[in-house]
Amino acid sequence: MGPSPAVAAVRLAVRRSLADLDPGARLLVACSGGADSLALLAATVFESRRPGHRVTALTVDHGLQDGSAERARDLVERMRSLGAAEARAVRVEVGTAGGPEAAARAARYAALGRVAEDVGADAVLLGHTRDDQAETVLLGLARGSGARSLAGMAPVSGPYRRPLLGLSRADTVAACRAEGLAPWEDPHNDDPAFARVRVRREVLPVLERELGPGVAEALARTARLLRDDADALDALAEEARAAAADGDGLRVDVLLAAPAAVRRRVLRRAALAAGCPATELFAVHVEAVDALLTDWRGQAGVDLPGPRHARRAGGRLLFCPGPVAG
Amino acid sequence: MGPSPAVAAVRLAVRRSLADLDPGARLLVACSGGADSLALLAATVFESRRPGHRVTALTVDHGLQDGSAERARDLVERMRSLGAAEARAVRVEVGTAGGPEAAARAARYAALGRVAEDVGADAVLLGHTRDDQAETVLLGLARGSGARSLAGMAPVSGPYRRPLLGLSRADTVAACRAEGLAPWEDPHNDDPAFARVRVRREVLPVLERELGPGVAEALARTARLLRDDADALDALAEEARAAAADGDGLRVDVLLAAPAAVRRRVLRRAALAAGCPATELFAVHVEAVDALLTDWRGQAGVDLPGPRHARRAGGRLLFCPGPVAG
Repeated sequence: MGPSPAVAAVRLAVRRSLADLDPGARLLVACSGGADSLALLAATVFESRRPGHRVTALTVDHGLQDGSAERARDLVERMRSLGAAEARAVRVEVGTAGGPEAAARAARYAALGRVAEDVGADAVLLGHTRDDQAETVLLGLARGSGARSLAGMAPVSGPYRRPLLGLSRADTVAACRAEGLAPWEDPHNDDPAFARVRVRREVLPVLERELGPGVAEALARTARLLRDDADALDALAEEARAAAADGDGLRVDVLLAAPAAVRRRVLRRAALAAGCPATELFAVHVEAVDALLTDWRGQAGVDLPGPRHARRAGGRLLFCPGPVAG
Repeated sequence: MGPSPAVAAVRLAVRRSLADLDPGARLLVACSGGADSLALLAATVFESRRPGHRVTALTVDHGLQDGSAERARDLVERMRSLGAAEARAVRVEVGTAGGPEAAARAARYAALGRVAEDVGADAVLLGHTRDDQAETVLLGLARGSGARSLAGMAPVSGPYRRPLLGLSRADTVAACRAEGLAPWEDPHNDDPAFARVRVRREVLPVLERELGPGVAEALARTARLLRDDADALDALAEEARAAAADGDGLRVDVLLAAPAAVRRRVLRRAALAAGCPATELFAVHVEAVDALLTDWRGQAGVDLPGPRHARRAGGRLLFCPGPVAG
């Protein structure tokens, strides 16, 4: 008798994700103890036997809940018993920058990166599913900041791989049940203080109810399509930026020859390169700079966060330190 | 005393939208009797006095509700009393193709086009607001079909102009109240049989509640940004299609040199040009054709709706009538 359909689906997804690796690769699997990452770890151990990959499992203790250290120790035991060659727990300090979710994420990825380097990992596997992707797209949509923020999480990004983006959370829950694995329910996953939890519990169910089932899949498909769009337009923006570069400025005539979508990406990059903080640079700033090109009436410069400013002079657009001279 | 802020905002939006027209232009305003289009008509009449534009108001009777003909006659009177130089009602037959909303829209735009031609309209004004745009984006999102379906309605498209896309429905309601205009409440606007009504009544309020106010604005901004993206990528796809054209096929090497986002747009266009019906051609079809390029293992062709099929032969991709030969 073969594995259950859910277990087979998770294994197939992992096998495909690892297909390009040479035998004997070193894999790092991030595991919270939830259904997604438990199913991922079990499948990765299974799929690593034949090619002889070495699996290290890592759980990150964010130290945000009572008993988290003890829970991490228990999980290390479970990860070993699932067949990981090595299992570790790492305690991190979560800061406050960007809000609680962003701070925890930053601390988690920093720890993953350190351990990946330590074990010489060829790939770092993350358990995000199609449902996580749909939530990410909706959170990006609420920001209203364009294709890149709707593109969600990449299936492959540097050492990181997300084999389960094509599967649902229900698939990983079913896989755990079929393998007798009891996932840990993180209370943070039910805390409505987190925007992601509100999207999962309140927004997606309403979308599914009112617009029909398959909304999560449609959102994940949207993410894939817009990721490709953003990649193509970013590459064009880099070409256009290089073509427009003229000393410490950008040539207005070259910028105006580019399509609006490419031109605004060039302007955003130039503002970031000039020192505007990414977290404070919004579409409204980029549009104001764009008006120096498309709606030029000899106006003064445009103030940008940093503080920086953009101004037009001698057929060039310049990004300079400080506010526009008063 | 000047006009109320809402009336002033609607007038400003109309003035900006008409700024490129020569004096004495002929305008056609579509008016359902609802708050959006009543406010639009009143503002258009006001803004047309100085430049001497001639305003024709048109209401379309879809014949779907009891008493609709009588209501249309009453509305013609109201549109005249609002100052339209001419006011008309047109009765249309609504078919069934594409569902009730799509069929009513098709009949409405066909009638608008006929009357626009008849009066020699330089511009046809439509009362869609930011809220309509947000609903359109969410409906596109549920389809999961990429940037163009998230790009919503264009501010300008051929003769059609939508001056109110930057204003909210609440703005037009306030403008009507300030001018003593009682809008007609279309019962269809509250009929949950329509997906758009469900989005308006169930989905957007939940998004606003869970993700913060300003979601409608974020969705409208997303639409603007993705419209520019789609325009740029469509132009690139047209260039790539021309570069790849080789007899009745497309050169595989040229297609493979294009970014995925451009290449898939070329494939979609080629499939449409070969006769695949737009309403039946989905991302999954385009991805299957793309695999003939990116994952070529000598496989047979790909069946497409129509029926048509795509196959690869002699370094070219061909779109042909009928299914793949069995």
